[in-house]
Amino acid sequence: MNNFNFDNRTKIIFGKGTESEVGKLTKIYGKKVLLHFGGGSIKRFGLYAKILKSLHENNIDFIELGGVAPNPRLGLVNEGIALCRKEKVDFILAVGGGSVIDSAKAIAMGVPYNGDVWDFFDGKAFVEAALPLGVVLTIPAAGSETSTATVITKEEGLIKRGSGSPLVVPMFAIMNPELTYTLPNFQTACGAVDMIGHVIERYITKVKNVELTDRLCESVIRTVINNAPKAITNNNDYNARAEIMWSGTLAHNGLVGTGRQDDWASHGIEHELSAIYDIAHGAGLAMIYPAWMKYVYKEDVNRFAMFANKVFNIDINPFDLEETALKGIKALEDFYVSIGMPIRMSDLDIDGKNIDLMAEKATLNGKMTLGAFKVLDINDVKAIYKLAL
Amino acid sequence: MNNFNFDNRTKIIFGKGTESEVGKLTKIYGKKVLLHFGGGSIKRFGLYAKILKSLHENNIDFIELGGVAPNPRLGLVNEGIALCRKEKVDFILAVGGGSVIDSAKAIAMGVPYNGDVWDFFDGKAFVEAALPLGVVLTIPAAGSETSTATVITKEEGLIKRGSGSPLVVPMFAIMNPELTYTLPNFQTACGAVDMIGHVIERYITKVKNVELTDRLCESVIRTVINNAPKAITNNNDYNARAEIMWSGTLAHNGLVGTGRQDDWASHGIEHELSAIYDIAHGAGLAMIYPAWMKYVYKEDVNRFAMFANKVFNIDINPFDLEETALKGIKALEDFYVSIGMPIRMSDLDIDGKNIDLMAEKATLNGKMTLGAFKVLDINDVKAIYKLAL
Repeated sequence: MNNFNFDNRTKIIFGKGTESEVGKLTKIYGKKVLLHFGGGSIKRFGLYAKILKSLHENNIDFIELGGVAPNPRLGLVNEGIALCRKEKVDFILAVGGGSVIDSAKAIAMGVPYNGDVWDFFDGKAFVEAALPLGVVLTIPAAGSETSTATVITKEEGLIKRGSGSPLVVPMFAIMNPELTYTLPNFQTACGAVDMIGHVIERYITKVKNVELTDRLCESVIRTVINNAPKAITNNNDYNARAEIMWSGTLAHNGLVGTGRQDDWASHGIEHELSAIYDIAHGAGLAMIYPAWMKYVYKEDVNRFAMFANKVFNIDINPFDLEETALKGIKALEDFYVSIGMPIRMSDLDIDGKNIDLMAEKATLNGKMTLGAFKVLDINDVKAIYKLAL
Repeated sequence: MNNFNFDNRTKIIFGKGTESEVGKLTKIYGKKVLLHFGGGSIKRFGLYAKILKSLHENNIDFIELGGVAPNPRLGLVNEGIALCRKEKVDFILAVGGGSVIDSAKAIAMGVPYNGDVWDFFDGKAFVEAALPLGVVLTIPAAGSETSTATVITKEEGLIKRGSGSPLVVPMFAIMNPELTYTLPNFQTACGAVDMIGHVIERYITKVKNVELTDRLCESVIRTVINNAPKAITNNNDYNARAEIMWSGTLAHNGLVGTGRQDDWASHGIEHELSAIYDIAHGAGLAMIYPAWMKYVYKEDVNRFAMFANKVFNIDINPFDLEETALKGIKALEDFYVSIGMPIRMSDLDIDGKNIDLMAEKATLNGKMTLGAFKVLDINDVKAIYKLAL
C-alpha cells in the first residue's frame, strides 16, 4: 500500500426533499451568490422554483447564469468570471450535474486570478485562491460534487482539458435521488458507465497489498451494475436511484483510491473523442474501457481475473487466468450493451479518420504519456482507438 | 435507505514515516499546544522523541500531560482542563490510541465550558465550543481519530459514559502503521474486535435497501478478519498493519452507516462490563457480540444469513436460513477465539454476581432502553449478560 493523504470536506445532505435546505446552507458561506445551471430541465421539473423559494426565504442576494452545456465550454466560464467580478459574487451555487459543477469550479478558480483561467488547464498556473461553492446535484455521474477536478472544453480547436484544486472541492452537496427520476434512460446509463469508470481508474493498479480498497472498489461497481438496470426499468425507483447517486460520489471522492496509484489513461483517451464528436462522456467511456482493457490486461492478468470474479461472479479458472480475465472484460461489455450503451465507435457511426488527430491531442503531439498501470505513448493510444472502432 | 448527512473533516496523513509531519500540521492550528499521551510506550519506542523534534523544528510552544490509562478517567480530564486554561492552550495534540484521543476530546469540550464537563456525558449540556485537536495514532481500534465520540469513566461509581460533538472531530490524523508494530498481540486482537464491532453496530439494521453500505460493511469486516491473524503472526507485517489501521478508521468515520440506523446496544452493554472489571473494551465486546447476536437474530434471520455468507463465505441454505445465520455467529466466535480473545465472561473468571447491577447501570435503572435493531429493556440486557457467562 502506498502512503496517502485523504481529505474530503464536502458536507453531504442526502435524501428525499433535501433541496429545501439549500438557502440555509448557502447563507453560511455567501452574501452574494451566483446561481449557475444548465438548460431548461431544472425549470421544467420545478427544482428552479424550489431553489428560488429557499434562497428568498433566507434573504440571499443572488444573480443567475444558466446555459451550461454538456462538455462545458470556456466561453461561458469567462462570462461567469466577468459577471462574478462585476457583481462582487462571493459564493457559487451550482445546480445540475457534472458539467454545471465543473463550469462553476472553473469560474471559482478564475475570479481571483489575474491571468487567463485557461492557464490552469494548460498547466501554466497553479490555483492559489478560489471562491467557495455549493452544489445541488441533479445528475449523478461525474462525482464532481465532492471532487477537486473540473474538465472544460476550449472552443478553439475543441481542446478538452482537466484541472483542479482542493480549493474548489464544494462546501456542501445536496443530493436528493428523487431529482434524478426525470433523467432520460440514456443519461442514467451514461452516468453508470462514468462512475464505474472512476472506480476502474483506481482499481486497475500495479500497487500491491490494497485489499480493503480492492473490496471497496468492487462494492461500488457491483452496486452500480445491480441498480442501473432497475432505474432504467422503473425511473421512479427511489432505492435504485439512491444507490446509484451515493455510488457516484464514493466512486470519485478519493476514498477508493487511497493507497493506490490511479491510471486515468482511458479518461484522457475518451476526452478527445467527446471533444471532437460532442458525444456523451459516458458513451465514449463505454467504447474506450473495453478497448483499453484488452490492450493492457496482460500487465497483470491476475488482477483482471479478480475483477471478473469479484465484480461479475465469474468462476476463476486456476488453469487459465487469462480466460477468466477476458470473460470479465466481455461481461463488462455485455453490461454496457444491456443498459443501451454503444461499445464500439461504429455503434455511433464514428470511423477511424480522426484517430491520428485524437491521439496527437491526447498526448500533446506525442510529448506526453498517459496512464500508470501501463504507460501509453502515442502509438499505444492509436492502437486503443483502433480496438474501439 | 434513510436520509442522512455525512461530513468528515479530518485530514488523513497515512503511511510510513508520516509522524515527521506533525509539527508542520500542528502549526496550522495552534500557537500553544497541549501534548497529551498515555503511559511510557511512546517514550520507550522513540515516538516521543520524534514528535518533540518535529514540534521544536516548527517552533511550537507546548506543555505536556501524560498518564492517560485505558478506559480514560474523568480525573485526568479535569486536570487537563485546568492546565489548558492556566496555560492558555489553543490546540490539543493527542498521541496514542482511543483512550488518549477520547481524553483529549473531553478536555477540548471542557476548556471553554463554564460548568462541569461531566454534564456533556450526563446529557445535561450540549457542546457549543471546543478546542481544536489533532492526532498521532498509535493504536488502531477505537476509530476516535475521525469520530465525533468520546467515552470517559467517572471514578465515583465507575460510571462509563459517551458523549460527542462534530466540534471535537480531529483536524488531522497522522497514521503510520509502523507505529503499531510494538502493540502486544492481545491489544491487536482487541482492536480487531472493536473495529468489527463498530461495523456490526451499523450492519445489523432494520433499514431496507442499503445495498452499497452493506457491501462496504462486509468489505471492512473481511479485511480485518483476513489481516488481524497476519499481524499477530508477524508483528512487523506492514501491509497487514496498514489494512487494519485504515479499516479501523473507515469502520467508525460514519461512512459505512450512511442511510442506515445504527444500533449500539452491545457497546452500551459492554461499557458496564469494562467499567466494573477494567477489562479491555475489545475483550468485553468479544463476549457481548455473540451473546447479543444469539438474542436478537430472529428479528431478521435473512440479514444474519447474509452476514454469514458475505463475511464468512458460508453457503446460504435456502431451506434453513436460521441454520445459516447461526453458523455465521459461530464463525464470528471462532474467529475471536483464533486471535486469542475471550468469548465468555467465564474465560476471564467473571461470574454473574454483578449482572443485575450492570443491567441497572446500562439502562439507568430501567428507565432507558438500548439499541434499535431490537429495542432492549433491562430484562433483555440481563438475559444478554447471562448468555455471555
